[in-house]
Amino acid sequence: MSIYLDSAASTALDPQVKEAMISSMDAVFGNPSSTHAHGRASKAELEKARKMIAQNINALPSEIIFTSGGTETDNAAIKGLVHAYGLKRIITSKLEHHAVLHITEHLAQENNIELIYLDCDNKGVLDLDQLEQLLSEKGEETLVTLMHCNNEIGNILDIKRVGDLCKEAGAYFHSDTVQSVGHFPVDVKEIHVHTLAGAAHKFHGPKGAGFMYIKKGTKMPALIEGGGQEREVRSGTENVWGIVGLAKALEIATEEMDAHTAHIKEVKQHMIDLLKEHIDGVEFNGMSANLDNSLYTVLNVSFPPSPKNNMLLFALDLQGVSVSGGSACSSGASVGSHVIAGIGGASDRTSVRFSFSKYNEKAEIDTVVGKLKEILGLVEA
Amino acid sequence: MSIYLDSAASTALDPQVKEAMISSMDAVFGNPSSTHAHGRASKAELEKARKMIAQNINALPSEIIFTSGGTETDNAAIKGLVHAYGLKRIITSKLEHHAVLHITEHLAQENNIELIYLDCDNKGVLDLDQLEQLLSEKGEETLVTLMHCNNEIGNILDIKRVGDLCKEAGAYFHSDTVQSVGHFPVDVKEIHVHTLAGAAHKFHGPKGAGFMYIKKGTKMPALIEGGGQEREVRSGTENVWGIVGLAKALEIATEEMDAHTAHIKEVKQHMIDLLKEHIDGVEFNGMSANLDNSLYTVLNVSFPPSPKNNMLLFALDLQGVSVSGGSACSSGASVGSHVIAGIGGASDRTSVRFSFSKYNEKAEIDTVVGKLKEILGLVEA
Repeated sequence: MSIYLDSAASTALDPQVKEAMISSMDAVFGNPSSTHAHGRASKAELEKARKMIAQNINALPSEIIFTSGGTETDNAAIKGLVHAYGLKRIITSKLEHHAVLHITEHLAQENNIELIYLDCDNKGVLDLDQLEQLLSEKGEETLVTLMHCNNEIGNILDIKRVGDLCKEAGAYFHSDTVQSVGHFPVDVKEIHVHTLAGAAHKFHGPKGAGFMYIKKGTKMPALIEGGGQEREVRSGTENVWGIVGLAKALEIATEEMDAHTAHIKEVKQHMIDLLKEHIDGVEFNGMSANLDNSLYTVLNVSFPPSPKNNMLLFALDLQGVSVSGGSACSSGASVGSHVIAGIGGASDRTSVRFSFSKYNEKAEIDTVVGKLKEILGLVEA
Repeated sequence: MSIYLDSAASTALDPQVKEAMISSMDAVFGNPSSTHAHGRASKAELEKARKMIAQNINALPSEIIFTSGGTETDNAAIKGLVHAYGLKRIITSKLEHHAVLHITEHLAQENNIELIYLDCDNKGVLDLDQLEQLLSEKGEETLVTLMHCNNEIGNILDIKRVGDLCKEAGAYFHSDTVQSVGHFPVDVKEIHVHTLAGAAHKFHGPKGAGFMYIKKGTKMPALIEGGGQEREVRSGTENVWGIVGLAKALEIATEEMDAHTAHIKEVKQHMIDLLKEHIDGVEFNGMSANLDNSLYTVLNVSFPPSPKNNMLLFALDLQGVSVSGGSACSSGASVGSHVIAGIGGASDRTSVRFSFSKYNEKAEIDTVVGKLKEILGLVEA
C-alpha cells in the first residue's frame, strides 16, 4: 500500500505532461540560442511555453523568464531587486520558505540592510497594519517579500492589499507564489507585484523547471551571467523539455482548476471531519482548517501530547503513508518546523503536514486516519 | 534534408538516455529531500547518478554537486572560490566562454579584483610561461580559470601543467570542462583542480542538467540559498529526471569514448581533406585541424574573402545544414565571435564552426562540402 499525502513537497507527474515532454524530446534538440533550423525549432518550443505561461497569469510573454525552479527564482528576484534599486530595508516574515529567509538574512548581513519580520498571530496571520505603518516611511528604499500561500500552514496572504500598500509607498514587492501558481488564479494585472516565482513540480510538472515573472519596466540584474539568454536575466542553455513540461502542467492546472479545487477541498474536509471525530484534542495549525481561506492542498494537523508522537512520521512511513513534518524542501527534515515555531506552536504537541492533490481520494483518507488511530494507540493494531 | 553539424552547441538526445529518463519518470516523483518512501526513492536515483558521475571522473560522490548546467556551474565556482578565499586576482583568457568572461569582469569591477588575461598566439595557444611567471607572486590570492577545451576553436589546455603550476603557487583553479567531459577522460586525481563544470546536453543528455566537481576540502559558498540541498552549495529541489539523464549520458559517453573518438576523428579528417581539396585558400582556426591536439568534435573553418561569405550561414541553413558562426550559447549569435577576434582573425575572412558527434557520417560531409561549393559559386548550383 502506498498513499501519498505530501503534494506540497512535490507532485506526481501528470501523464499528459510526460507525453508532452517526450514529444518534445522526439521533436527538438537544438540549442535554442542557435539561429539555424534546429535551434529555431527549440526556440519555438520555448516561446510557445513562455506564451502559455504568460497567458495563465495574464502577463506578457516578455515578462516571463525561465529558471530552474522556485528557490533559484526567489534568490534571483530578491537579490536582483535589492541590488538594482539599492534598497536599504527588507520586510518579510519568519514564516517564509528558507529560499527567502536565507537569502534575505545573507543580504542583510552583507549589505547593511535593515531586516524586519512582520508580527503574526498564533494562526500565522500577518499584521498588515504593521506593514502599512512600516511602509509609511522609507517605502522607496524597501523590498517587501511575502509568500502568497504558506507551504506548511496554508495561510493565504492578502496579496492584493500588500501589493496596493507597496504601490502606494513606492516599495518593491516580490511574492513567493510557488504554492499558489497552478492552484489559484494568479492575475498580475490585478495585483501590484514586481516579481513572482513558479515551480512546475508543485503542479504535476517536472522538477528543475520554473519561472520568474518580472513586471515590465522592472530592472533585474542577472543571478547567472553568460550567453545572455532569457533577456540577459538568466544565462545558460534553457531546459527545453522541462520547460515544455512546465507549460503543459500549468495549462492543465488552469483548465482543470475549478474541478480540482472542489475535489481536493472535499478530500481535505473529509480528513478534518474524520480527525475531529476520532482523535480527541486534535487541532489544526495556522489557517489550514479554514476551507474558505487557506491553501486547499494543505492541512497541518497538531496532535495532542502522546508518547507515541515522536514515532508518528516514521510509523506512517512504515505503513506506506508519505507525509511531512514540515517543509520537505530542506535536506534532513528532522530539525522541526520553523513555521510552527514561528507561530508559537506548543512544544509538547506534534505537527504533521498532510497535503493533497487531484490524485487523492477520500478512501485514502479513511485508510490514513485508521492507521493514525492504530499508531496513536486509540485502537488495536 | 537535414544535417546537424553543431554538436558543440547542443547534442541530439541518445535514445538510451531518453529511455532512462522515462523509466525514472515512471518510477519516482517524490521530493528527494523528503524522508518518506517516495522521497527516498527519488533520493536513491540522485545518489546513484552522483556515484556514476563521480566514478567517471575518478572523484568521490561527495565531490559532485548537481546544477542546472555549465553556465550556472562556472558562475557558482568562480564566484564561490573568490568569495570563500577572499581572492584578489583572477587570471583567465579572452578565449573563454561568456559564462566565465562575464562573471569574472563583474567580480573584478565589484570587488576591486585584478583581472589578467593570458597572452595567446594566433592559433589561440595560451602562454603558460606567462602564467608561471604571474603565479610566482601573489599565488595564494589568485584564481586561475581556464577552459579545458575551447568550444569554438577546439584548443586543448595543458590542464595538468596548469593544475601543477597552481598547486605549486597555492593558487585556486577552476576549469570550464563543459566541452571535454564525456569526450575526453577526465581524472581529477591526475589534475590539480578545485572545481570543474559539466553539462549533460554536450554529450547527448538533456539540457538543464549539469554538475560541479568540488575538490574535497574546498570551501564553496552557495550561489543559490534555501533548503540546503546539495551539501548547502546549491539549494532547490533537484531536477531528478534530468540528473538521471545526465548520469546515463555520461555513462554511455565513457563506455563508448574510444569508438566515438575514432569515428568522429575520421569524419573530421574527411572534412579537412575535402575542404582543402575543393576550396582554395581555406584555413582552419586555432588548433582545430590538428587531429592529435584538438577537441576532435570541433573544426573551425576560415573561408577566404568572397562576396558570398556574408550569406554563408544563412545559405547553409536554407539547404538544411545547421552550423554555427561561433559559440551558440549566446542569444542572437550574429555579433561575431569574440574567440576569433581574440586570436586576431582576419576581418575579411569568414569563420564557421562545424562540430560533430557520434551520429555524423562521412556521407554527410560529402553533401555539406558539395553545398559549400555551390554556395561559394565554385560550381553551378
